[in-house]
Amino acid sequence: MFDVIETPRLILDKARLENNAQRFRDLADKNNICLRPHLKTAKSLEVAAIANGGRKSAITVSTLKEAAYFSAGGYRDILYAVGITPNKFAHVKAIIDQHKTDIILMTDNLDVARAAADFAMRENCPLQFLIEVNCGENRGGIAPDSPQLLEIARVFDACPEISFKGVLTHGGHSYGSDDKQRIAEIAEAERSSVIEAATRLSDINIQSEILSVGSTPTFLFGKNFAGLTEVRAGVYMFFDLAQFSRKICQLEDIAVSVLASIIGHSKEGRSLIIDGGAFALSKDMSANNFLPDAGYGYVCDPVTMERLGRLSVNEVHQEHGTIHLDDEAWFERLPVGSMIRILPNHACATAANFDNYLVVENGNILGEWQRVNRW
Amino acid sequence: MFDVIETPRLILDKARLENNAQRFRDLADKNNICLRPHLKTAKSLEVAAIANGGRKSAITVSTLKEAAYFSAGGYRDILYAVGITPNKFAHVKAIIDQHKTDIILMTDNLDVARAAADFAMRENCPLQFLIEVNCGENRGGIAPDSPQLLEIARVFDACPEISFKGVLTHGGHSYGSDDKQRIAEIAEAERSSVIEAATRLSDINIQSEILSVGSTPTFLFGKNFAGLTEVRAGVYMFFDLAQFSRKICQLEDIAVSVLASIIGHSKEGRSLIIDGGAFALSKDMSANNFLPDAGYGYVCDPVTMERLGRLSVNEVHQEHGTIHLDDEAWFERLPVGSMIRILPNHACATAANFDNYLVVENGNILGEWQRVNRW
Repeated sequence: MFDVIETPRLILDKARLENNAQRFRDLADKNNICLRPHLKTAKSLEVAAIANGGRKSAITVSTLKEAAYFSAGGYRDILYAVGITPNKFAHVKAIIDQHKTDIILMTDNLDVARAAADFAMRENCPLQFLIEVNCGENRGGIAPDSPQLLEIARVFDACPEISFKGVLTHGGHSYGSDDKQRIAEIAEAERSSVIEAATRLSDINIQSEILSVGSTPTFLFGKNFAGLTEVRAGVYMFFDLAQFSRKICQLEDIAVSVLASIIGHSKEGRSLIIDGGAFALSKDMSANNFLPDAGYGYVCDPVTMERLGRLSVNEVHQEHGTIHLDDEAWFERLPVGSMIRILPNHACATAANFDNYLVVENGNILGEWQRVNRW
Repeated sequence: MFDVIETPRLILDKARLENNAQRFRDLADKNNICLRPHLKTAKSLEVAAIANGGRKSAITVSTLKEAAYFSAGGYRDILYAVGITPNKFAHVKAIIDQHKTDIILMTDNLDVARAAADFAMRENCPLQFLIEVNCGENRGGIAPDSPQLLEIARVFDACPEISFKGVLTHGGHSYGSDDKQRIAEIAEAERSSVIEAATRLSDINIQSEILSVGSTPTFLFGKNFAGLTEVRAGVYMFFDLAQFSRKICQLEDIAVSVLASIIGHSKEGRSLIIDGGAFALSKDMSANNFLPDAGYGYVCDPVTMERLGRLSVNEVHQEHGTIHLDDEAWFERLPVGSMIRILPNHACATAANFDNYLVVENGNILGEWQRVNRW
């Protein structure tokens, strides 16, 4: 199927993507909550359409470049889920002016709130804001019981050009566990933190229209979403070895892989050399905490996608990958010029190394889908 | 200087680049050997011009996309220093046909040599080949005393459309040491391996016009280059913390950095949150073996480039970086919205995250230089 394809190449299995997307839409329906897919993993209009079941409904993005791209593609309800700074206001305004898109920004900082209010008034630019609260990861977000929460909300509330939308949190520490009970606890911490923050704001007559939480693990294992308006999740569309290692998916769910060629046999190193190195696979090893043989990815047959014995990519340089062999018979089975497919550690990081997907379905190549990388 | 610049952004200090390039050209002159700069780090015509002292002389590349880009830019002597496979022959032919460029390919495999000879004859496509030998890294390359060396060379020698050019090795294990004596030994292993291979070929009347070795460390600390025709090196143009950690450069030599903004203050995490995460800095931590406080990069003042105390980027997520603080005074010194510059672990990996450089010189922004990423 891939004989004439130049390697390395990012392959996307459309049927697996569709299954994953359907599973999470069903989960949202079951929990009676809105799923706002995070497109930071996929960065693709075609994938977004599948994630959203064909509707141009609410989405999440990680860069303003994604916001501009999805705006141009017809999306009108876009949450930019990274704390904004004043040097990005002009870019936000340009997207709003060009596409009449609702871009929802977020911050956890009073100075930024004041600068945003100044900008919005000076430029006659209507802005929409969430406040980010911390639910235990201690990355972005202020404590839901902090005085700053009210101060920031009051700045937004007082500015005629700013529409205050609500509160958001992300339980990113859910990726640090492979224990479903622990992940469920983090899901509850997400829920209780935004509800606490929204309640405090409501007490001063500032209402939250959006109470947003989420990550793939907390959405999957959370028990209770009552009081929330939406969940965000992204990597579930593709899954990867990091999710597999945490028992969140099966190997057969992983929808992206890297097609690579064997470019050399190292007899001294007892290894295969491939053209999938750090620049194709990334140096992310996040599966290895719970899956010590993950290396830089599982090595699979390019057509059947069965793992080849116990082979992993064990070392990466810029353009070279090295696969250590447990048996020299692999030299015959995988001659130089033959191909493999590699299941990635972390789909977000691996996919970001490519400008497009080569999309396959039922053993056929359907075509290319573009990605919007960078900033 | 950077107030209106949207972050994250890759900054290139032109004066530092020029100093590094001059130093390595001087070293080549002193050793009376040709320097064939490796553009896998810089991937830029403007940087190549500085590396080559304004001449369009011999260069090395790591992808065929680089080969096409530098061919289009007027370079005519290009070594593609990754083992070729048959699925890339058509791309090579397209570049040769379009630009009349000499692209020198390499392999260490008899099947590939035969496939190349078949392709060259069938397509009337003149190809040029080096054979890659192993000098101890056990990645690419066959042993210089192996029977295959002669078999591969005979295939090339017998094919009227293939010009056999010589032998090449790369002592990549030089990056595994910070000991100058050990690196000098690896440099000698590079030299002796290609000379041994070329001598064996000469004994069967196959002459090597090119005897190519190199890496930045082995070029810098090698004692003897007699009998070689050229050295390859790349990261020296920019340097990075990995090179600094191995005492190969000073901090003041590092020519690339990432401009990032403080996007949040985490009181609970006692940390600064920045918009320079894994997608801007990469997950490469190769400096940390010999420089345990490198983290994902040293945090510097954006203008003076002095390191800020002992601050490093300690954690990275996709778009977020986290800087742990030893003193809460940093919250005042670095308010949300202020900027820093980060010296990278590994210049090749960090620069690859950006499509262009913002070039600065003497405190002024000169403009943008483009990069050619991907494949």
